[in-house]
Amino acid sequence: MAVNVLERSTMKPISNATALTVLLIAMTLPNYLLADEGMWLFNALPVEHLKSTYGVEPTEQWTEHLMKSSVRFNVGGSASFVSSNGLVLTNHHVGSDTLAKLSTPENNYLKDGFLAKTTAEELRAPDLELNQLINIEDVTEKVNARIDTHMDDATAALERRKIIGEIEQAAKDSSGLRSNVVTLFGGGRYHLYQYKKYTDVRLVWAPESAAAFFGGDFDNFNYPRFCLDACIFRVYENEQPAVIEHFLAWSKNGPAKGEVVFVSGNPGRTSRIFTVDALKTERDHMLPYSLDYFRRREILLQQYSLRGVEEARQAKDDLFGIQNARKLYTGKLQGLQDPAIMKAKIEAEQRLRKQIATDPALARYDQAFDTIKEIQTKKIARLGTGVRISSQLFEIAQTLVQMAEEDTKPSAQRLPEFRDSSRESLEQQLFSSAPIYKGLDQALLADSIARTVELLGADSEVCQKMLGGVSPVQLATDAIYGTRLDDIEYRKQLAAGAMEAIKTSGDPMIRLAQAVDDHVRAEQKESEELRETQRQAYAAIAEALFATEGTTTYPDATFTLRLAFGPVKGYELNGQQIPAWTTMGAAFEHSENHEGLEDYELPNSWIENKTNINLDTPYNFVSTADIIGGNSGSPVVNKDLELVGLIFDGNLQSLPSDYQYDDRQSRSISVHSSAIREALLYIYDASHVANQLGK
Amino acid sequence: MAVNVLERSTMKPISNATALTVLLIAMTLPNYLLADEGMWLFNALPVEHLKSTYGVEPTEQWTEHLMKSSVRFNVGGSASFVSSNGLVLTNHHVGSDTLAKLSTPENNYLKDGFLAKTTAEELRAPDLELNQLINIEDVTEKVNARIDTHMDDATAALERRKIIGEIEQAAKDSSGLRSNVVTLFGGGRYHLYQYKKYTDVRLVWAPESAAAFFGGDFDNFNYPRFCLDACIFRVYENEQPAVIEHFLAWSKNGPAKGEVVFVSGNPGRTSRIFTVDALKTERDHMLPYSLDYFRRREILLQQYSLRGVEEARQAKDDLFGIQNARKLYTGKLQGLQDPAIMKAKIEAEQRLRKQIATDPALARYDQAFDTIKEIQTKKIARLGTGVRISSQLFEIAQTLVQMAEEDTKPSAQRLPEFRDSSRESLEQQLFSSAPIYKGLDQALLADSIARTVELLGADSEVCQKMLGGVSPVQLATDAIYGTRLDDIEYRKQLAAGAMEAIKTSGDPMIRLAQAVDDHVRAEQKESEELRETQRQAYAAIAEALFATEGTTTYPDATFTLRLAFGPVKGYELNGQQIPAWTTMGAAFEHSENHEGLEDYELPNSWIENKTNINLDTPYNFVSTADIIGGNSGSPVVNKDLELVGLIFDGNLQSLPSDYQYDDRQSRSISVHSSAIREALLYIYDASHVANQLGK
Repeated sequence: MAVNVLERSTMKPISNATALTVLLIAMTLPNYLLADEGMWLFNALPVEHLKSTYGVEPTEQWTEHLMKSSVRFNVGGSASFVSSNGLVLTNHHVGSDTLAKLSTPENNYLKDGFLAKTTAEELRAPDLELNQLINIEDVTEKVNARIDTHMDDATAALERRKIIGEIEQAAKDSSGLRSNVVTLFGGGRYHLYQYKKYTDVRLVWAPESAAAFFGGDFDNFNYPRFCLDACIFRVYENEQPAVIEHFLAWSKNGPAKGEVVFVSGNPGRTSRIFTVDALKTERDHMLPYSLDYFRRREILLQQYSLRGVEEARQAKDDLFGIQNARKLYTGKLQGLQDPAIMKAKIEAEQRLRKQIATDPALARYDQAFDTIKEIQTKKIARLGTGVRISSQLFEIAQTLVQMAEEDTKPSAQRLPEFRDSSRESLEQQLFSSAPIYKGLDQALLADSIARTVELLGADSEVCQKMLGGVSPVQLATDAIYGTRLDDIEYRKQLAAGAMEAIKTSGDPMIRLAQAVDDHVRAEQKESEELRETQRQAYAAIAEALFATEGTTTYPDATFTLRLAFGPVKGYELNGQQIPAWTTMGAAFEHSENHEGLEDYELPNSWIENKTNINLDTPYNFVSTADIIGGNSGSPVVNKDLELVGLIFDGNLQSLPSDYQYDDRQSRSISVHSSAIREALLYIYDASHVANQLGK
Repeated sequence: MAVNVLERSTMKPISNATALTVLLIAMTLPNYLLADEGMWLFNALPVEHLKSTYGVEPTEQWTEHLMKSSVRFNVGGSASFVSSNGLVLTNHHVGSDTLAKLSTPENNYLKDGFLAKTTAEELRAPDLELNQLINIEDVTEKVNARIDTHMDDATAALERRKIIGEIEQAAKDSSGLRSNVVTLFGGGRYHLYQYKKYTDVRLVWAPESAAAFFGGDFDNFNYPRFCLDACIFRVYENEQPAVIEHFLAWSKNGPAKGEVVFVSGNPGRTSRIFTVDALKTERDHMLPYSLDYFRRREILLQQYSLRGVEEARQAKDDLFGIQNARKLYTGKLQGLQDPAIMKAKIEAEQRLRKQIATDPALARYDQAFDTIKEIQTKKIARLGTGVRISSQLFEIAQTLVQMAEEDTKPSAQRLPEFRDSSRESLEQQLFSSAPIYKGLDQALLADSIARTVELLGADSEVCQKMLGGVSPVQLATDAIYGTRLDDIEYRKQLAAGAMEAIKTSGDPMIRLAQAVDDHVRAEQKESEELRETQRQAYAAIAEALFATEGTTTYPDATFTLRLAFGPVKGYELNGQQIPAWTTMGAAFEHSENHEGLEDYELPNSWIENKTNINLDTPYNFVSTADIIGGNSGSPVVNKDLELVGLIFDGNLQSLPSDYQYDDRQSRSISVHSSAIREALLYIYDASHVANQLGK
């Protein structure tokens, strides 16, 4: 019986906050999954499959050790503990947000790299929060307990938000841990994730961006690759390096060709459950819309960078982020525009709907497909109807304005980010000492106001109210150079003063946030209702899928910890065999082959130390492990849980994997552990760091 | 009486092909014009205004000499004859299309500049056509003779196209001149323009792009400026330098501060007659749509350039063009988003409509405003509904496919570009030996097919037919690497073989052009009908304007020869006085102030010859002359018709002048004649060229 399938499945809670109980799954994989497909929940690993396919048996200890050695960067990214004294390994491009915030015109750590000779020299990040997953619990029944099918979607959404708020608050109160309820299977399951937080995080080592992002935007998402996309932080507690129980040992030689490896990280978002109608909306509307925005912002940041060397430095990290997104979305769209990929999706859906149609017990799930179809029309109509303002100072103002309003309600009824259980994380961001560049922020604000005016029409009520008779450029200039929100103390005053302080502030940026707040809230509400409708429909589709195709599977990515795996393995492209790994020596050749292009200039540290390093050291390698954005910085381990690599990218062929996994050419790309060690020892003069790794 | 106003006005023919008769206009300017506003028709100059304001009297000889010394670059741009032996002066950025086509991986003339030591070394442009205006004739009555108000717009459009075709053919047959009927006042008048064509055009001198486009994309449209945006061609006849009767003398010292100067060039397009409804469509729909496209193409060309130094060279000129357009449109949009500008437009329109309403003789014009309003809805609905494919090889294929079809009709009934009277110009482009880079063309084709799929939806009939079951990237790759259209002989064969050859060609690019042809033609037809409706409405509005505001005015720009004027004059910006001109010496300072930015590196020729030049030589200057895109390369002359400068840009404040002229801060920017001479003599070792100037 379909309804009970999920209850019999593997979604059981890990029942207490310190010990981990993993159910051993004896069932085989559903037939629609490829061998290495899957971003598996840590409380529902495909144990039997791993045993039969790779001879690896993830025991409770194995799983707990890997889970607790894994680290999430809350800004978006993954990492791992790699020493007993708190060293955290992640990608340079995950650490880059902090590197940029720590940089000054005099010390450009993002570009030039950084090395602390002693712990005293380690630099504290202004607003990093790292999370270590401690516990997972299935709370689906609790979340659904007060929801019934007679509620309209607005009521259901409000009620669900309230229940989730209560669960999170109770969990935090009893454990002291960061507690978040995660929606899985598009609404089929709700799990409570509990994390230990680290908020004192310090920079230990970063290479030059020329080494980390060698080959630049063109090589990004390409393979073969030659990037030292790594950096090292250290977590502190009570002003001392934290003592870490679960950390990864450092592999002596890294993986062999064909050896299975495991990736433990936080994939951000996938859309594999999407119906064909939803995919077509992505293809014909959502992705083109996002790409227009990315390109717009990319050009804007480039324009700002042309003003001067210092301005280029200020914009660099944002520019990288937006270029990365633009390239990623371009690849996703190309995937959906490929009739072969869409055909596979159509056929799978037809198969499922046919099975539903022939089984009276499943018939009620069919309606879900029509619901999703109806939602598409609404989604398309809503595209570009929101206020799309973004600038650092505006976002601070918006947070303060919304917080004052939300704080008048009981915690559980607030928008999620304003609940008491999230206040500490929110304030870390809100009162961050990260630099704000007013010139850059003016450019971002002016353009995003102009974009809002374009999307909503200059004569629309909200735009007229927002602009107050001046041009977007003028409004932005007045707000940026008139606001006091760059002063952290003033932010704290406003936050402490609550609604009264906001109402009487007179700060032009606060006024701007107030002017659009009604529109923003109305949009958030509609959006939440639509998501609720969608959640209920996808929950039904998930149930139908389990009932027809098998019971052991993985949900779409949710920026929570997952396990992926697969062998280290090259692939064929246009008749050529692409080898599984590159070497450090080949990086020099790659540079020579691109003479005259700035992005292919290796830093001096590499050129000067070329004779000191073993040029045959494996540098980057590919595997079939199923990853996506958010996995950046994930540790890659062998079956003995030794660190053999560091995920930093997927190849171009992997970009459509948001929608569909493919093991023919799609590959995840890692920095080889030996290259990190070799570089620390013989390029960066950082033996004191290298010697702590895995110890 | 309103109807007769225009007939009494100045739109009289210049009645024969060699002599010029200019009517002296005794009337004062309409009160809504600013002193230096206007892109004046050469057969309707504001003679009295020039006399009373600037003490300059343009005689027949004066006007004819300036008109015949002026040159139009058909690729888009203006120029002038500057010697008796055929030297033509224009902007580097007007010549850049040819510079790029003449460049090779070994000789990058676009980047490194060029100098012919002798006429034998002058390089023939592969497909340049230069036009010298010889005659203007008012053919309004002829064009309207067979149009009556009972015709529906489709019939009227077809009929008008036919009549214009007949007029052009007859004019060409009798004179041998290139003959084009130009729509003025949005449809209020039709003039026949006749040109002598020069198709053997050779490159004489061009500076490095680092000197011509010093300051790059950031300084573009900015002022103060320091650009040697100039290059020199020579026209040939019968393999000899052409003997030129009308050419401009070279001023000894250039203009004085406050001196009035004249600009004779071909402004491309303005929209000053647009109603408020039309301007709002521009602001909220058309400009944002175009900008999305420009940014998309800019990123695409940047991406292609990242592939390598040679690829960057191939894409450079296209990239400049698109960046220029993106910056221009951004400024136009900012203008329309400025409530102050829109307010002035609204008030002017309200004033006009009120006057119409109070005068029974004018009442019938009011309907035109509603017609324009109705058109906006259609225009917005049509946005993005067309096939938007662009690549060099695709455009060749499309021309061949359409030509075969059009050639089955009588000449006068064809689409304008396929008439017999235009065949020579068409073939010069179609059979051009300009290089085609298949890698670049594949990137352009793939992206523009993908864009078409995004705009029309992948499941639309035309996209399904176009794609034939493969992805956009695959389709583009197959067409680019499968076509034979890069072979000029094959193009000639297909052109000669007409419809039969096209039908049986089997060439994949021809097939692609055929697959979308029905859709393209349907769109062209709808578009032409809409334009006809619009023409009739704007013609009525123009009549109303003449009747109420005055009879002597200028029509919106149409890429035909116009005269603009105004004093050399600085302006105030943010409380600072911006001086009227810069000096060559200040270019070195500007470079030093932007150390570390590639766009501000002066070429070696400048650095090496710094001590040889007079650093006080005026370099760039501004005037209030009313110009717009297309004016690039226009000669700037003093009242004695000596060349004192070379238009190359407008400042940022001038960008909204598409919609409204403003003389407070809006300025045209020119290269000073003395700087051109100084550079030729003391930087580029080109005294043999400098010595021919003005002689």
